[in-house]
Amino acid sequence: MEMVEELKKVFEALTSKRALIHHITNYVTVNDCANVVLAIGASPIMADEITEVEEMVDICDALVLNIGTANERTIASMFKAGVKANEKGIPVVLDPVGVGATTFRRKSVEQLMEAISFSVIRGNMAEIKTIAGLEAKSSGVDSLETENDGSKIAMELAKKMHCVIAITGKTDIVSDGKRCFELNNGVSALTSVTGTGCMSTSLIGSFLGASRNALPSAIAGISTMAIAGELADKKQGMGSFHQGLIDAISHMRSDELLKSLSMKEFK
Amino acid sequence: MEMVEELKKVFEALTSKRALIHHITNYVTVNDCANVVLAIGASPIMADEITEVEEMVDICDALVLNIGTANERTIASMFKAGVKANEKGIPVVLDPVGVGATTFRRKSVEQLMEAISFSVIRGNMAEIKTIAGLEAKSSGVDSLETENDGSKIAMELAKKMHCVIAITGKTDIVSDGKRCFELNNGVSALTSVTGTGCMSTSLIGSFLGASRNALPSAIAGISTMAIAGELADKKQGMGSFHQGLIDAISHMRSDELLKSLSMKEFK
Amino acid sequence: MEMVEELKKVFEALTSKRALIHHITNYVTVNDCANVVLAIGASPIMADEITEVEEMVDICDALVLNIGTANERTIASMFKAGVKANEKGIPVVLDPVGVGATTFRRKSVEQLMEAISFSVIRGNMAEIKTIAGLEAKSSGVDSLETENDGSKIAMELAKKMHCVIAITGKTDIVSDGKRCFELNNGVSALTSVTGTGCMSTSLIGSFLGASRNALPSAIAGISTMAIAGELADKKQGMGSFHQGLIDAISHMRSDELLKSLSMKEFK
Repeated sequence: MEMVEELKKVFEALTSKRALIHHITNYVTVNDCANVVLAIGASPIMADEITEVEEMVDICDALVLNIGTANERTIASMFKAGVKANEKGIPVVLDPVGVGATTFRRKSVEQLMEAISFSVIRGNMAEIKTIAGLEAKSSGVDSLETENDGSKIAMELAKKMHCVIAITGKTDIVSDGKRCFELNNGVSALTSVTGTGCMSTSLIGSFLGASRNALPSAIAGISTMAIAGELADKKQGMGSFHQGLIDAISHMRSDELLKSLSMKEFK
Repeated sequence: MEMVEELKKVFEALTSKRALIHHITNYVTVNDCANVVLAIGASPIMADEITEVEEMVDICDALVLNIGTANERTIASMFKAGVKANEKGIPVVLDPVGVGATTFRRKSVEQLMEAISFSVIRGNMAEIKTIAGLEAKSSGVDSLETENDGSKIAMELAKKMHCVIAITGKTDIVSDGKRCFELNNGVSALTSVTGTGCMSTSLIGSFLGASRNALPSAIAGISTMAIAGELADKKQGMGSFHQGLIDAISHMRSDELLKSLSMKEFK
Repeated sequence: MEMVEELKKVFEALTSKRALIHHITNYVTVNDCANVVLAIGASPIMADEITEVEEMVDICDALVLNIGTANERTIASMFKAGVKANEKGIPVVLDPVGVGATTFRRKSVEQLMEAISFSVIRGNMAEIKTIAGLEAKSSGVDSLETENDGSKIAMELAKKMHCVIAITGKTDIVSDGKRCFELNNGVSALTSVTGTGCMSTSLIGSFLGASRNALPSAIAGISTMAIAGELADKKQGMGSFHQGLIDAISHMRSDELLKSLSMKEFK
């Protein structure tokens, strides 16, 4: 099926099923993540107590793990939730925020990737290179890498991990190991509001929870965020832009997205 | 006294006393909760370290317990704070977020209700039915219940618990076990912004901390949120609507509220 | 050098170096703090897991410690991060939120001040008086103190602590023990949005991380927030005002700030 048709399908899936997206995520951007999930038409739940995460997984349609402000306690909850989700066939999305910054993050992500089978991993170039075992330059949670070799890195890591790899940046690259797409939407203001990466991941989780189709869900989630950025970009400052993002996401339909989508497939 | 007069009084109480509202609450909506407390004219404090919650209770006018992202550590702090508040005669409000979703939440709320005497419990229909020991359908933190029998359920639970029960939804129902009111304000957009339930609970806490009168405080808190939703509803998207809610709450006075209030008493 | 020249320099420093500001901070205002750091042109990172904070300090340009919702676990992380920052010569800023409210906060701040050498401590009058060992009236995290004797208190505490003391309120007072400045910008609406104090501290951290010059960084951080308040004050409610603050900060340049700055030096 053409990707454009698949994108229409994942939007339709969202409309026909109010997917419940369980998050174990950071406390910096959690409110924005909940609001974009609602804005796109899914339902968020955030819970990280280890004694309840398995039951939460039981009732959810997708699980999003985001290590932005993870600690020993919440990483343990991520393990338990992820393993349970795998058992139940519920898709799991990983956002390895700042994975290259500390040993704790590198080890946690390594161990999560060993124990849990992910449907999608979304990160910036430095985060994905770190996961792929390559050298990567970063500053805290920001990447200092270019997108060179992005399609090769995404393709190979996707094959190795048996999951969709989504690298976001000026150009976004998404691959499931067989196909590989380049996305060219977005504006620089998106890097001046905290959490636009986390929100993209939560949007991916929303599409995925409804459709169970990882590749178009990754493309839909990332493009929704990027195009919302374009629509909000006339705003007069970062506060208004931040609000404009949520406004635009709450109006995003597949025709709106496809009208603006700048996508090409690597052949 | 007529409820309309009681509502005017709780607004007056807020004006004459800057009530300090201690919250042990979730990290998803905590910023919005703090901002609505400030917007309505009270003062928020959020603190959950077990070694300090009793001292916080000592200086506050009301305590709000919200289990949205509770864990073993914060539930223990809730116990300590709630028991202390009861000793000091400081009113306590409970928001049993998603209580039906997991065993951890059900047990925690059961034990909190045994140990602590609440002034107001506010939840959606599924949450209140769960507390009342009835079967309830929910999806994560959202109710899938209709408001059928709401007045009966609220009335009986209020009598049993010796507290005000507030069920929010398309129609809101509030009872202290003697009187029972139905409220019909609000717009559907309120379900597309995270935390409007939590914010209602924090508004109830604000009115209650200032007035010490639970029934009109519950009605004032819920109606302030619902009418703010009506006032913000012309906005162009969920980001603007979210901001419009805080704008409207920061302008809410009793005459504004009474002008828009759609309330009827069950007789 | 004249303070006006020093202020221009700290703005220039921000432009020439994208400073990375590590925060161990509260979950109420953390999103706003991250967004003001981005809006002014620095880069935020929030991380509180004790096993990783030293590595985070290693890569950052300034460390901000804010005790707003601290607990035993995060206070331990603050110690470790602060000591490491001192070893590496990385400036540390303290925001002693509500330090007078509980024994836990007083003791934690006392011990932090013994173990760590701070570059700037920013608080309201009640918080700074508490730190200075003076009696102070507060309500939760709000000060009930006047600014009387502010310059004397700031000057003496700054000398004793070998750091810049910044007291914010209707009038702000900033001293490094040698010089002392009074700032008279700001609007009352700033007290009706949660976190404007925390955001000021994060702005101080941003200027300081880029410039390594504590006194003008404290003045620049506080004035940026206060003048953003003046610029946002025509807004129609607290939600719009909140957004207007971030808009204004994202446009703040030294000429904008100096045009509006109301500052006088105590002689």
